Amino acid sequence: MIKVGIVGGTGYTGVELLRLLAPHPDVELMSITSRTEDGTPVADMFPSLRGHVDLKFSTPENARLTECDVVFFATPHGVAMAQAPALLAAGVKVIDLAADFRIKDTKVFEKWYGMPHSCPELLAEAVYGMPEVNRAAIKEARLIGLPGCYPTSMQLGLAPLLLQGKALVNEASLIADCKSGVSGAGRKAEVGALLAEAGDNFKAYGVKGHRHLPETIQGLEALAGRKVGLTFVPHLVPMIRGIHSTLYATILPEARDVDFQALYEHHYKDEYFVDVMPAGSHPETRSVRASNMLRIAVHRPGNGDLLVILVVEDNLVKGAAGQGVQCMNIMFGLEENTGLKHVPVMP
Amino acid sequence: MIKVGIVGGTGYTGVELLRLLAPHPDVELMSITSRTEDGTPVADMFPSLRGHVDLKFSTPENARLTECDVVFFATPHGVAMAQAPALLAAGVKVIDLAADFRIKDTKVFEKWYGMPHSCPELLAEAVYGMPEVNRAAIKEARLIGLPGCYPTSMQLGLAPLLLQGKALVNEASLIADCKSGVSGAGRKAEVGALLAEAGDNFKAYGVKGHRHLPETIQGLEALAGRKVGLTFVPHLVPMIRGIHSTLYATILPEARDVDFQALYEHHYKDEYFVDVMPAGSHPETRSVRASNMLRIAVHRPGNGDLLVILVVEDNLVKGAAGQGVQCMNIMFGLEENTGLKHVPVMP
Amino acid sequence: MIKVGIVGGTGYTGVELLRLLAPHPDVELMSITSRTEDGTPVADMFPSLRGHVDLKFSTPENARLTECDVVFFATPHGVAMAQAPALLAAGVKVIDLAADFRIKDTKVFEKWYGMPHSCPELLAEAVYGMPEVNRAAIKEARLIGLPGCYPTSMQLGLAPLLLQGKALVNEASLIADCKSGVSGAGRKAEVGALLAEAGDNFKAYGVKGHRHLPETIQGLEALAGRKVGLTFVPHLVPMIRGIHSTLYATILPEARDVDFQALYEHHYKDEYFVDVMPAGSHPETRSVRASNMLRIAVHRPGNGDLLVILVVEDNLVKGAAGQGVQCMNIMFGLEENTGLKHVPVMP
Amino acid sequence: MIKVGIVGGTGYTGVELLRLLAPHPDVELMSITSRTEDGTPVADMFPSLRGHVDLKFSTPENARLTECDVVFFATPHGVAMAQAPALLAAGVKVIDLAADFRIKDTKVFEKWYGMPHSCPELLAEAVYGMPEVNRAAIKEARLIGLPGCYPTSMQLGLAPLLLQGKALVNEASLIADCKSGVSGAGRKAEVGALLAEAGDNFKAYGVKGHRHLPETIQGLEALAGRKVGLTFVPHLVPMIRGIHSTLYATILPEARDVDFQALYEHHYKDEYFVDVMPAGSHPETRSVRASNMLRIAVHRPGNGDLLVILVVEDNLVKGAAGQGVQCMNIMFGLEENTGLKHVPVMP
Repeated sequence: MIKVGIVGGTGYTGVELLRLLAPHPDVELMSITSRTEDGTPVADMFPSLRGHVDLKFSTPENARLTECDVVFFATPHGVAMAQAPALLAAGVKVIDLAADFRIKDTKVFEKWYGMPHSCPELLAEAVYGMPEVNRAAIKEARLIGLPGCYPTSMQLGLAPLLLQGKALVNEASLIADCKSGVSGAGRKAEVGALLAEAGDNFKAYGVKGHRHLPETIQGLEALAGRKVGLTFVPHLVPMIRGIHSTLYATILPEARDVDFQALYEHHYKDEYFVDVMPAGSHPETRSVRASNMLRIAVHRPGNGDLLVILVVEDNLVKGAAGQGVQCMNIMFGLEENTGLKHVPVMP
Repeated sequence: MIKVGIVGGTGYTGVELLRLLAPHPDVELMSITSRTEDGTPVADMFPSLRGHVDLKFSTPENARLTECDVVFFATPHGVAMAQAPALLAAGVKVIDLAADFRIKDTKVFEKWYGMPHSCPELLAEAVYGMPEVNRAAIKEARLIGLPGCYPTSMQLGLAPLLLQGKALVNEASLIADCKSGVSGAGRKAEVGALLAEAGDNFKAYGVKGHRHLPETIQGLEALAGRKVGLTFVPHLVPMIRGIHSTLYATILPEARDVDFQALYEHHYKDEYFVDVMPAGSHPETRSVRASNMLRIAVHRPGNGDLLVILVVEDNLVKGAAGQGVQCMNIMFGLEENTGLKHVPVMP
Repeated sequence: MIKVGIVGGTGYTGVELLRLLAPHPDVELMSITSRTEDGTPVADMFPSLRGHVDLKFSTPENARLTECDVVFFATPHGVAMAQAPALLAAGVKVIDLAADFRIKDTKVFEKWYGMPHSCPELLAEAVYGMPEVNRAAIKEARLIGLPGCYPTSMQLGLAPLLLQGKALVNEASLIADCKSGVSGAGRKAEVGALLAEAGDNFKAYGVKGHRHLPETIQGLEALAGRKVGLTFVPHLVPMIRGIHSTLYATILPEARDVDFQALYEHHYKDEYFVDVMPAGSHPETRSVRASNMLRIAVHRPGNGDLLVILVVEDNLVKGAAGQGVQCMNIMFGLEENTGLKHVPVMP
Repeated sequence: MIKVGIVGGTGYTGVELLRLLAPHPDVELMSITSRTEDGTPVADMFPSLRGHVDLKFSTPENARLTECDVVFFATPHGVAMAQAPALLAAGVKVIDLAADFRIKDTKVFEKWYGMPHSCPELLAEAVYGMPEVNRAAIKEARLIGLPGCYPTSMQLGLAPLLLQGKALVNEASLIADCKSGVSGAGRKAEVGALLAEAGDNFKAYGVKGHRHLPETIQGLEALAGRKVGLTFVPHLVPMIRGIHSTLYATILPEARDVDFQALYEHHYKDEYFVDVMPAGSHPETRSVRASNMLRIAVHRPGNGDLLVILVVEDNLVKGAAGQGVQCMNIMFGLEENTGLKHVPVMP
């Protein structure tokens, strides 16, 4: 059994980790930390876990995290980088769901996250936790920086285009028009995320710049081995879970004969968690609700030179906790889909 | 033109007052206060008001409220009672949307609102602002304590039963199973009102006791002139606006031959804002959305001895701002429905 | 492995059965019927099942249902009673999710469902599939009539009160104020269930009379062994899954000293799927979303003589498909919670 | 008073016309037709209209439409073109909310709408009812083809770019990523629009081709006087009203110094119903809910060469009924905003 600790169990990614890990056949939940809820049974805060999780929240000091095999950080940015060095030194693997270990360039990190990076020496070692592009490195990793929710959908949606020897599309002007449910904003008391504000409403936000942009560009450039230009426009959808990314790429003249449907199907044919749907499909976010699946559809309207890629994922699962468990499975030599074979909840 | 000031314009009842008062033909909006937003144009915070409201928020000190004819308080409990005495002394009428002047017994107020009452001497003068039961007093009032949203629906739903010479129903054991949209909780950053928490979800709350219970019992007893017993169970509905109250009353043996449909129709036949629907109707909250109407349907399932009264209102209009404007119209000698003839927004 | 057939797989209870049965460790899905979708892969209609269900819909004629061990009917009322006799004769067990085998009195059935009952001779044998009140009979049953979604919540919410030697509450005037998500109306094209109609809206319906009333009274009277009177008022909530029943019962003078919290906890102490929450709780529908759990909270406001019981369930799971699988587990000697240990999906 | 008839009053655009026209100071509602609801009081079907509309539905035969000054068609495609010739011959003006008179090329119409056009001779005369680009022609028109909901947002969002002497952006590869609430699908019983299907869900649809594409291209080319290429990807949002269009245009090298914010502000400075918001704004659909306003924000992320235009409108008002009333006002010499000065409903 893998001994698992969770730091920061009171947010949505924390409770989602608990939903996935509590019934995981190879996991023993050891401790869950929360300074503010020390001593509170987890199931008192989240009655959905009654009968599934018997733990109480404890302070980090009392959580005996160094006795764990792996610790997940479901915390605000900045927490994992403060605690990871000691855990790694104690032989504990670390998987961070926040942004501390995503961005390799500390200047970029500091610009977008507004804080200095406290352990840049670990950044080189940290592995970007997206198994479909990075499986071998994850297998050997001690420290994982999990991708953000939007970046997962954008990168997996564009990867088959970029991973070719030569450019197929205009890589300088990619567009990602992304839509997310409100759980992406976290379990924080903010006026903008109230049902009375975000319900029956739709808007874009962060058009000027969003933290997931530099992360995604870094990832896309790593895939392509070339410079990539991306415009990323996020929108808030009045739903709870789910991301739908509509990606636009202009096909280069020399690639007009490529069968992109076949290219995507071939690229992902061995991936359990990526489903390339039949040509003409319109994936719905609910088709992956509460599961680790990501579905992709490839369109080329009017057989023109614009490729439209539709990607859906559950932002809390493949976009966060589920991808974390997927990485953990790889790191500990388990079948990659262990504990992650949920049938999506529909309707 | 009636010169109107609003204290506390950043919450939902404040912005709803602005929606109703900006196009009101007899109103001149003079000032809107907010300590935190001093200097911000109101329409910057609420773009729905662009082109309709040119005012900026100002501090109470700069708002020159004493030059107004009437001041609305759309503030948390406790603010109006601190400022009302000076305004009244300056000849300004006051309409409070909070609870400061609803409850006549200061001990009851203090128990349920957790603060001492700072001007008990005004309580005797304050008029409970529910025109359908209190019109004459409102006409003469300087100071109005507007009913709560739930209490409006409960009292107008039960009034025809209680206003008879003798009891028709068991007045000791009335039940009000009420359901409210989330705007009733106000524009406050609270986790429980997030779309990710309250969306796609339903629950009761405050079953042990809710502040609207003593207010409603006070009102019902004033109507009946007798002791009344009420169980009030509020629930939170994943919608923005609207209250649906399902009221249960046991018909007394001597009243079994009463035609309750006729009794309700007769009772409200001259009321513009109360619509007794045809027998067998199921009023929907959206049928009053964004309007000051309250609709009632009278049921007697299986022709038995339990009366089921269905009441719908928009909690922000008839349950708050609209009822306030209705009172203002009465106080200033206008037609009661001036500026309040909105067709409900459906769908 | 239990060979399972499903008749009528295109509605919400059908697809929910598939979600539960596809990963069930002791089940082999044999066939799913749909006349209109013959030949269509199930996962084409419900992409959430891609990778989990490989079956195609087939006509009943081609479905070889007589080779199954058990057949579920997720069909409109009237279908199961037409096909059950032949299946039973072939040694196949039958579990009907519709109303054909719920009501023992054919006159009552015919009045409420508007069709004659075609196999009254099976009614006496049919077992009402609510394990918590009927486990022994289910174990021996060939034919199960599964309870309706509302009736499950009402009966399990009231059972501890009624199953005592003498009456504790006024059993002649029980009230059930119930609220359901829209999936309860089924996957049928009806204007009233459109998002543009039912969204951001709340209303009661069927106050005059609802089919679940006679079923529930039959069940409550079977529990009590006495006549029971019930007023049932259903409401439509703008959410997808979930039922919240608020039940009112007047405590008899001789029962005023009963500890109802203890009574409920004791009554359900061995039930895996019924969770009596701590005193003072307000169960939320999302706390059971996509799981077979039913949660109950017991309230006695003001320590008066009115008991308020709050019950939540997922109408598609404990209110339909999940309860069906629970019955199947019992009928085939499996652990009752096999394949039903889902952690509810929250948020 | 303008005598107004409405053909097809049972859909969302019909009831929205009633909401706008019932209190319109210069309108007298004469008749509303519905074959299926002949004799039913309109307010029985739409209780929101109780007290505002006293008419009953009548058959077209009995509706005496030729006595009206203007008739609105809120009908499925194909109805207006059958009835318009006789009305026009009788001197009645016609405003069609469907597509019959939008598209000038009958071959294009027939391809996308699957029916022959029955009065092509009227197409040349019909005026496209978008006042901001076509006011003078509307003033003289007898027959108006109102724009579709999406096309209104796309054309008004792009018009300032295209109406310049020379191209500012790459007009061959415009992208419109549009999101609509479900009322856009109409008040039709369809499974895909159920709350249980479309709620808490997000998806694209019609990526292969949507009827609003040829209409929009026709309009854009009329504006530009040049060929235009557009990719249009519509999405379904789990909300009732509202369209949010995110428009992408690549700035041409020679236009990199253009101040697009100023260009938009200048272009729309005299338009009552078009609000160019301050730079950096993110318009929300609710900021125009139930009003005829359309709001635009202009973005240029990273000061690069991609222009991102955000447009919001209420699909039932500026996208349908409100724009129709706006045209009527113009046609009859009224102030353009008569009866259309609603403050948007927020929250």
